[in-house]
This record gives sequence, structure tokens and C-alpha cells, in this order.
Amino acid sequence: MPFYIGLLHYPVYNRSGEVIVSAITNLDLHDLARLARTYGVERFYVINPLIDQQDLARRIRSHWVSGHGAEYNKDRMEAMSLIAVVATLEEAIAEIREKEGTAPILVATDASNDRGETVPYSFVRGIAMSHRTVLILFGTAWGMARELIRDADYLLEPILGVSGYNHLSVRTAAAITLDRLFSQN
Amino acid sequence: MPFYIGLLHYPVYNRSGEVIVSAITNLDLHDLARLARTYGVERFYVINPLIDQQDLARRIRSHWVSGHGAEYNKDRMEAMSLIAVVATLEEAIAEIREKEGTAPILVATDASNDRGETVPYSFVRGIAMSHRTVLILFGTAWGMARELIRDADYLLEPILGVSGYNHLSVRTAAAITLDRLFSQN
Repeated sequence: MPFYIGLLHYPVYNRSGEVIVSAITNLDLHDLARLARTYGVERFYVINPLIDQQDLARRIRSHWVSGHGAEYNKDRMEAMSLIAVVATLEEAIAEIREKEGTAPILVATDASNDRGETVPYSFVRGIAMSHRTVLILFGTAWGMARELIRDADYLLEPILGVSGYNHLSVRTAAAITLDRLFSQN
Repeated sequence: MPFYIGLLHYPVYNRSGEVIVSAITNLDLHDLARLARTYGVERFYVINPLIDQQDLARRIRSHWVSGHGAEYNKDRMEAMSLIAVVATLEEAIAEIREKEGTAPILVATDASNDRGETVPYSFVRGIAMSHRTVLILFGTAWGMARELIRDADYLLEPILGVSGYNHLSVRTAAAITLDRLFSQN
């Protein structure tokens, strides 16, 4: 069950529903890298088409993997070393295909429940248990573009709390998603 | 099942195991407030004994509840209005007692598994379902002080991923904890 996660900064919506490139958020990289390390993720793709944003993400990674951060905090180094910075989803898929010998099954996530037919967490857990390669995608800003969700193999059901309120940060939504899919307690 | 959460900035450990007061992190307030709103939390206590840190937390809250942020984002307003800033855990408990007519059952959380006997998530879920008042405590920095855990009624079992690595951010750990205790899907 090699599985991968991707954090998309394009194509995503802004507040007005326009497609934009979102900016790298430092704590997203830290929180998702630590989650990745906790839940046994092979690699965490930070996906952003802008060169300066890729550079920023790479500088953050380097600081913790081979810079002063690595001496300061070995646990963080282990987590941050799972980050790979790429320009596009296609690039991430190509890398995974090269490493695993097969293209990953693409699983999109979204907070809304009007973006297409969804599958339950148990379904994706089942796929992962069957030793197939899976790439789970998380959108930043106001969520990933519809065409990307349509092109994915599956769309996970949204996280329901108790209130109908579904405005979690991508950090906490990713935490809940990975825990539901892969926790052992 | 009225339940409350508290984010402790004292007494917590630093990296060297000394007891310190930690600083307010802006995104902790946002992420935990949004989680609180999602999972039906009555109130989210931000606990910090330093006046300037309390002021900072109150300014952040005000911006989103009654300032420009409230006009900009009503969803965030709903979440941030759940924040209450207090100096001590005792103050939070006193407020809850006044509101609910009973002191809350204190549930501590910790990433380590050497801090005392733990209870499973199902146990705390059972308490909450039995309509008792619960306050779940999250520590910042390197975790809450042992004496605080000892004084709590229960200590939740740590979050196990698949790897033995247990260095999540308090944001993602709180997300997983609340989802395990209160999710409906």
C-alpha cells in the first residue's frame, strides 16, 4: 500500500470562485509533512506552478533537512524530508509511476457535497490495503477546481462534524482524512 | 453532551523539559476554532497567564468577530466567536461550572505513552454521550506538564499512526482527537 499525498496550489478557487494559484503556507508544509511521517506516506508532493513559490517551498524543506533546522530538530528533519516540490500534478504522477511502476489511483478531497459522486473512507482504505498505489489530493484556498475532481478516479466524501459547518483548514482536514484512512487505533 | 476544549500555554514543557509559558500562535486559534464549530464544541478556551498574550488572543478574536474580518468572512466569525481567553485552567473550569451547574470532567491529551494510565477514545465518547460535561485539554510546545495530567480525571491514549512517530502539531492532533470522539461519518 504505497500511498502519496499532494497539496495543490493550482488550479484552486478563490473566495469568488475564480481559479487562481494560491501561495505556499509555511505551516501547511510542516503540518502535512508531520502527518505524512506519522501515517507512513511515501512522499508529500507540494504542487505549485510558480517558480518563486517552488523556491520558497524548497528553501523551507532545505532548512529542516540539511540546514540549521536539521541540527535543531531531527524529528522535523524526518518529516520534512518527505516533501517533494513539483510544478504540476502530472509531474507528481510521472514520478510516482517511475518509482512504483504504475500510475497512482487519484483520490480527490473536497469540503462540499455537490462536486460529484463520493466514496466512503472505508472504500479508499480497502484500495490501499489491496496494495495498489494511491495519491490523495488536498486543495488549498477555497478548494480544488471541479475539472480536477472530475479527472480524479474517486472523490472522498466530505468530513461531517455535527453541525453542517464545513470550513476546516487544509491542515486539519488532511489530518482527519489520513487518520480515517490509515490509523491503527 | 456539552463539551469544551482548552488550549494550554502554561504549564507546558519546552524542548529541554523545562516548564514554560508558550506564545500564542495565530493559526492555532483559527484551526481550533474552526474545529470547535465543526464538532459542536460549546466554547474554546485559550489559556495563557501572560496579559500581553491574552491581549493578542483577544485582538485576533475581535478582528474576526466584530472587526473587518467579520465582514470579510462570516464562517470565520462563527468559529472565532467560540474563543474565550482566560488566564488559568481554574478560570475556565469556574466559567463552565457557572454555565453548566457542574464542574467538567477533565480529559488530558498527550503524545507520549509514559505519562500515566490512558483511556481509549470510545471511553470518552461514552462519557460525552451520557450527557456529562467534558473539558478536553490540549498542550502547546512540547506538551502539558505532568502534574496537570495527573490532576485530570482521564488521559486519552496517544494518537498512533503507523510508524511510532508521534510529533504532530497541536492543530492536527486536536483535529484527529475531536474527529475520533465526535464525528458522525
